Amino acid sequence: MAETVDKINLGEKLGLIEERWSPKIVAELNDSYVKVVKLEGEFVWHKHENEDELFFVVSGRLLMRFRDCEIRLEPGELIVVPRGVEHMPVAPEEVHVMLVEPKTTLNTGETVSDRTVAEPEWI
Amino acid sequence: MAETVDKINLGEKLGLIEERWSPKIVAELNDSYVKVVKLEGEFVWHKHENEDELFFVVSGRLLMRFRDCEIRLEPGELIVVPRGVEHMPVAPEEVHVMLVEPKTTLNTGETVSDRTVAEPEWI
Repeated sequence: MAETVDKINLGEKLGLIEERWSPKIVAELNDSYVKVVKLEGEFVWHKHENEDELFFVVSGRLLMRFRDCEIRLEPGELIVVPRGVEHMPVAPEEVHVMLVEPKTTLNTGETVSDRTVAEPEWI
Repeated sequence: MAETVDKINLGEKLGLIEERWSPKIVAELNDSYVKVVKLEGEFVWHKHENEDELFFVVSGRLLMRFRDCEIRLEPGELIVVPRGVEHMPVAPEEVHVMLVEPKTTLNTGETVSDRTVAEPEWI
């Protein structure tokens, strides 16, 4: 799929997703994937030892909780969570997010649980 | 700046830019920069030998011209131009774009000219 040069409409891709907290791959560049995901409720505290992770809010409102603060993101806003930094995404209501992160990134970081998506699918 | 966890509002950052075709860095993750840029008019044909480049349209309309086709991108749409693929961004009217690309990426690729921005600034 990486060999095809085609545009990707984030809203259309998000419209194909039913589940929450299950990132889907929409593009790849260099050693990273671009993913889209619907979030609702609280996730789990976790960190990524070797990966910085970008969250961009497409629609809705995202709270990114850190151990010492909480940052609220609106549509058109992004945050980069550096490797090694504990974080917990929280979505009081449904929020649609684009992620950019290395292909090695596990959604739950080192905190493997039933919420871990080992092999995200392309959508 | 990478050590500060803070959010970035793309619209606010773009509001600080006067020039066209002069990407500014707003974040870094892994080996890549996130940049914002205002485009208007035609750029130059170029390619990046070793870098895949992501264009995400924040506002306006972007035409990405390839040697054998042209793709029109609207706000909320993105395209990944793979390494080695010649392309020319065209903006019939002003368009605001977010880029994600390796830190080594030169805006004009191998086609160095007076439009080359050798060292993009943070904004």
